[in-house]
Amino acid sequence: MSRIPFNVHATDGAARTGELVFPRGSIRTPAFMPVGTAATVKALYADQVAATGADVVLGNTYHLMLRPGAERVAAFGGLHEFMRWDKPILTDSGGFQVMSLAALRKLDKDGVTFQSHIDGSTHRLTPERSVEIQRLLGADVTMQFDECVRLPAPRDDVERAMRLSLAWAERSKAAFGSPQGRALFGIVQGGDQADLRKVSARELVAVGFDGYAVGGLAVGEPQDVMLAMLGETVPELPSDRPRYLMGVGTPDDILKSIARGVDMFDCVMPTRAGRHGQAFTRFGKMNLKNARFAEDKRPLDETSDCPAARDYSRAYLHHLVKSGEILGMMLLSWANIAYYQALTAGARSAIASGAFADYAAETTAGWARGDA
Amino acid sequence: MSRIPFNVHATDGAARTGELVFPRGSIRTPAFMPVGTAATVKALYADQVAATGADVVLGNTYHLMLRPGAERVAAFGGLHEFMRWDKPILTDSGGFQVMSLAALRKLDKDGVTFQSHIDGSTHRLTPERSVEIQRLLGADVTMQFDECVRLPAPRDDVERAMRLSLAWAERSKAAFGSPQGRALFGIVQGGDQADLRKVSARELVAVGFDGYAVGGLAVGEPQDVMLAMLGETVPELPSDRPRYLMGVGTPDDILKSIARGVDMFDCVMPTRAGRHGQAFTRFGKMNLKNARFAEDKRPLDETSDCPAARDYSRAYLHHLVKSGEILGMMLLSWANIAYYQALTAGARSAIASGAFADYAAETTAGWARGDA
Repeated sequence: MSRIPFNVHATDGAARTGELVFPRGSIRTPAFMPVGTAATVKALYADQVAATGADVVLGNTYHLMLRPGAERVAAFGGLHEFMRWDKPILTDSGGFQVMSLAALRKLDKDGVTFQSHIDGSTHRLTPERSVEIQRLLGADVTMQFDECVRLPAPRDDVERAMRLSLAWAERSKAAFGSPQGRALFGIVQGGDQADLRKVSARELVAVGFDGYAVGGLAVGEPQDVMLAMLGETVPELPSDRPRYLMGVGTPDDILKSIARGVDMFDCVMPTRAGRHGQAFTRFGKMNLKNARFAEDKRPLDETSDCPAARDYSRAYLHHLVKSGEILGMMLLSWANIAYYQALTAGARSAIASGAFADYAAETTAGWARGDA
Repeated sequence: MSRIPFNVHATDGAARTGELVFPRGSIRTPAFMPVGTAATVKALYADQVAATGADVVLGNTYHLMLRPGAERVAAFGGLHEFMRWDKPILTDSGGFQVMSLAALRKLDKDGVTFQSHIDGSTHRLTPERSVEIQRLLGADVTMQFDECVRLPAPRDDVERAMRLSLAWAERSKAAFGSPQGRALFGIVQGGDQADLRKVSARELVAVGFDGYAVGGLAVGEPQDVMLAMLGETVPELPSDRPRYLMGVGTPDDILKSIARGVDMFDCVMPTRAGRHGQAFTRFGKMNLKNARFAEDKRPLDETSDCPAARDYSRAYLHHLVKSGEILGMMLLSWANIAYYQALTAGARSAIASGAFADYAAETTAGWARGDA
């Protein structure tokens, strides 16, 4: 495999900052990747997403294979061209969404057969087909096909899924081949079982990937369990390869995970919260539906670089949210993605200057202090 | 009354082009005014609206008095500041929406009492309160309070509403006073009755307003009835004052009305259609839900100045619309507002060069020809 360069510029405890270098541009780490499920980061223009500082967005294999279809996206020159995003794209493998969204799933050793949640049509994903779809989409980072179980789950189920994911990791790697300028990440599974996490990590490393994701967390377990599992897993992963914690999380989850050596994150939280009237800010989370904002002339954060956070009064945002106006969703989704980018940009600077612990403490104190 | 300057630069048959000059900026006519019902042109940022060439947006007294409330908007320095739009704003009087949206309306000679469609609370509008609300909102153009009847309607009802609207026109004018830099428009009523339209127009002109609107059209009657009523009404209005056809309409309605001497229009059609997957283009109206767009790599219109119309494939728009994505609504609303602005900008140029009939014929032929 021709490895994608990952340059670690500085470390600060277990935290590190660096960049993952692709032909389409570099991903500065720690990185937050906005989720562009169906070829759009919901309620945002692609150029707004780029302007917040995002270096990469995520696309969902499950959604895109069903609509518009991987071959159709490929006929358009790939997902970048289709959605007008020219920086790197990471695609997931489809495994997680099949488990959480599809109807009538039937899992076998070779893959999974399922019915579309859109029209009931039958589809099949295998490690080979998942990798092929991600190639058709034009992914810069391809994720191995895996099986993820929701927690809590019986240990036997967790172990079976972890073993199956390892077998699929090998098949994903074989199917991926050695394309220039593209990366394949393996996914550590093992639920909330420390020993299974270690086995999964070691065996994945033995197979060898461009990067290593930690999957199957933030799926129902408490934060301390998630952090404990990271503590067990990260030391097993090679320090010269990026580590990606899938589907995480709150700003607090992100800071605590960076402190444990995680480099990449994705989560629907900032955009989903934005569509539901919630803002993430350096003063903590605000629910703009709350009547206390009805006459609040202040912006979300006058120091923000993001126009959505800086230029509109909370009273106006409150009005838009209460009125169910699309512009409310647009502005809050934008402000939230910008906040997540500012959070990770701040982490990168702090790590570079050896001050990450202070940065995390000050940021956390800011959330607690609020804006009173 | 201190009159707002209206400079007619050129005429071409009954069509004319000019500008209505306000301290906040001029409205170039013929003008299409995007509707910003609840302090937002739905699914568009205010700066996008301005960039399409719109010189003015409309705000709705009915919606804004209920939420967030006129006094609250005033406390924010007015609607311009609240919604971040610094060019002129025209507000309607609330009369039309009370009739079409409110529950348990009770009309009397003095005004109307009604219940909010949002929370059932009781409110009252009179000519004086309507003008006061529009002042609190900071309207550059205030509309007189009127009563509008849906067509078809018995002649007696039409006449009664027309007479009531005339009485309210006088009271609106008295309440308005003579504020510097702000305009008050009267509204011609009279339904589909030519003689009543003439009476209404003449009596309004006798009262004297900065501009004259034609109300109570595009409320269920065929286009030829609407155009016939314009033909009866416009000649009764002074040529040195702007004429505004309320709530109209399709691009074809607009061209035919410009040809009959109308200067200003507003309509929810471009944004509402945009939220429902429809695009207005120089090739006619397109329903992006249609499967024929699924593999259409062309933009809506490669010659458009609007990024939404120029830079995204129809296949991508089709995908977004089919997926119910907010970005689809954002892009189509934007493209549609831009098309309406391009249509009226083209009309202004054509009138200035004495070629409006050719412009209208070519534009209409373009819609018929399509893009095959």
